[in-house]
Amino acid sequence: MAVGDDPLPLLRPVPGVRLGAAEAGIRKPGRPDLVVLELAAGSEVAAAFTRNRFRAAPVRLAEHHLAVDEPRYLLINTGNANAGTGREGERAATETCGMLAALAGCRPQQVLPFSTGVIGESLPVTPFRRALPGLLGELAEDRWAEAATGILTTDTRPKGASRSLEVDGRTVTLTGIAKGAGMIRPDMATMLAFIATDAAFEPGLARRLLREAVAGSFNRITVDGDTSTNDACALAATGASGARLRSDSPELAAYRDALQGLCGDLARAIVRDGEGATRMVSIGVTGAASEAEAERVGFTVAESPLVKTAVFAGDPNWGRILAAVGRAGIDDLDVERVRIHLDDYLIAEHGGRAATYEEHEAATRMAGEEVTIGIDLGRGAAAATVWTCDLSYEYVRINAEYRS
Amino acid sequence: MAVGDDPLPLLRPVPGVRLGAAEAGIRKPGRPDLVVLELAAGSEVAAAFTRNRFRAAPVRLAEHHLAVDEPRYLLINTGNANAGTGREGERAATETCGMLAALAGCRPQQVLPFSTGVIGESLPVTPFRRALPGLLGELAEDRWAEAATGILTTDTRPKGASRSLEVDGRTVTLTGIAKGAGMIRPDMATMLAFIATDAAFEPGLARRLLREAVAGSFNRITVDGDTSTNDACALAATGASGARLRSDSPELAAYRDALQGLCGDLARAIVRDGEGATRMVSIGVTGAASEAEAERVGFTVAESPLVKTAVFAGDPNWGRILAAVGRAGIDDLDVERVRIHLDDYLIAEHGGRAATYEEHEAATRMAGEEVTIGIDLGRGAAAATVWTCDLSYEYVRINAEYRS
Repeated sequence: MAVGDDPLPLLRPVPGVRLGAAEAGIRKPGRPDLVVLELAAGSEVAAAFTRNRFRAAPVRLAEHHLAVDEPRYLLINTGNANAGTGREGERAATETCGMLAALAGCRPQQVLPFSTGVIGESLPVTPFRRALPGLLGELAEDRWAEAATGILTTDTRPKGASRSLEVDGRTVTLTGIAKGAGMIRPDMATMLAFIATDAAFEPGLARRLLREAVAGSFNRITVDGDTSTNDACALAATGASGARLRSDSPELAAYRDALQGLCGDLARAIVRDGEGATRMVSIGVTGAASEAEAERVGFTVAESPLVKTAVFAGDPNWGRILAAVGRAGIDDLDVERVRIHLDDYLIAEHGGRAATYEEHEAATRMAGEEVTIGIDLGRGAAAATVWTCDLSYEYVRINAEYRS
Repeated sequence: MAVGDDPLPLLRPVPGVRLGAAEAGIRKPGRPDLVVLELAAGSEVAAAFTRNRFRAAPVRLAEHHLAVDEPRYLLINTGNANAGTGREGERAATETCGMLAALAGCRPQQVLPFSTGVIGESLPVTPFRRALPGLLGELAEDRWAEAATGILTTDTRPKGASRSLEVDGRTVTLTGIAKGAGMIRPDMATMLAFIATDAAFEPGLARRLLREAVAGSFNRITVDGDTSTNDACALAATGASGARLRSDSPELAAYRDALQGLCGDLARAIVRDGEGATRMVSIGVTGAASEAEAERVGFTVAESPLVKTAVFAGDPNWGRILAAVGRAGIDDLDVERVRIHLDDYLIAEHGGRAATYEEHEAATRMAGEEVTIGIDLGRGAAAATVWTCDLSYEYVRINAEYRS
């Protein structure tokens, strides 16, 4: 199941990036499972990795390579997360980077490895050895759609987005792809996102922009509250457009908006394709004393199984939303001031159901594929939006049956 | 669904407590829904209430009455939680206390009200007016089993436990009843527990003992992570045995054990009757740097939908357990030292699957109705145990269909 149709939009090539996908047979035959992104010399990569303490071997190795050398290749496989695999997993990840480096004529540390798929099984290196030579021979600028498909696991559809804008009088492009069908299935070691741009950045700026964009997009979505061992998001900047962004560039705000918009599109696409999802839920928290407080309230509501099953049922259950807000850890919350809306329809205030509440009016706002919950805490000016999906029988089926 | 059979054990009368149940027709006809406990003059009551900021009218009123007078009656209704009902709810709760007080010849503040059931609907007071006179005429010491049934909502069975021990050369009894089929359904405004004893206590001691017992029992269970607006646990001490406990009583440790054991029995009975539960899960965390840390890890694993669906499937999915431990917020966790057992069978160590792991051996430990997960963090000497149940299709059905 998934919310809506969501065909893959046109993904614009990013000058300085060539890519491709191959069927390497890592876990199952007959599906693309190996993707390579090649970055022009002089490219910069900024990356964000999972905060889970159990980090997969490729996550640790990619972080290390990023610290010691200039990346030229991203090497991504699905079917096997190479997580929970100990020293053997580190050796396998290192070996695959070495293979690609030998074929491409770069240093092994210039390859960043990413893996997604089942946890706890050894990563087989033979499929890499067989598939890499052919794959490297076929890299091209216009193969983003194939790459978007080649990184999927239990996703029901590929996810990608593009933006372009003018910087320094030049057209700059951003294109990104992502995978993930739960904001985390440790089993399938879930979320990966790769974004490329042909802009260049002053030192430290790419990392800062990525951190901000991730905080407002990938770190604001949740399907089940679990956090994967393999999550990663990388931004590759080739500079091929000739445009260079600085902290004082007049176009910085527009570029930031484009990157945040693109990350938001990808993040929402993941939620819409959430395991068993039938509705997408946007939870906007306003009137908070701080952004962290707004985020905490948003996540508490988004991860409440009672709220999620009510959304599945199309039930405008204001009591469950209210109760979730009440346990979000704000000790001095004045419940009299909390107001809850579905779209623009007021459903709760003064600690209970709104006086004007009518069940059929509220139910109308829960009937579609997109549900918008607005929570005004009445405490301050900070806000945050969190996205999630409902909790259905299908979620239980997928996660109960996955290993069998 | 519920785990096992769990017939109600023999509930011993507590001298100084008379009680009874009646069919008042508060929400549905033909089922007991009104319970009264009468306490002998001079009894003491200690109570713990929900920490949810949205607290139901009876919770606020009971807390207030407890602060200003000596309780003589506990007045408990099911079918309606009187939560999210604003000022009207406060008036209704006050009115029912007044009715009972007028009939019994005590002050309204000597009545503690407790409600459980649907949220957001006005509490009808007429059923109280009709049923209370007859109910008060039938109070008796031996009607604990009827009271245990009279406080249920969606529970599939009554829950109660008794203990007795010698204090000051006298036999002291503790008997308790509880209801709750999720460690929280805000809709059904969930957990209530009433414990009576014929011991007396030096000032402050009853409250301290109850707080300790609740911390290690009711506050260590979770079905879905949601916290109700109506949760309450009360300990009534009549002193009718003539035994009095002091901080330096030689029997204090034995009494504490009895109270904690009784609360633990009631708490585990709630989890075993959890919504849709097919297995009960005990998560013992050891080797933690502090008890709070152990508790946090226990709850993170207990509330992980991925772990819970794996338990439902009987799948010894060590990867999901490991990933949940990894996101429990211990920044300096050394993943190399974490060891995870199912019963006494080692399934994960050194950041991955145990070298000796065999799937069929692990699956055997997941096949029964009781699953025991042991997590040794390898950091210190603190420990905590958290109890939960699995996440099944039935949980989704119950919570998606409840209001329709």
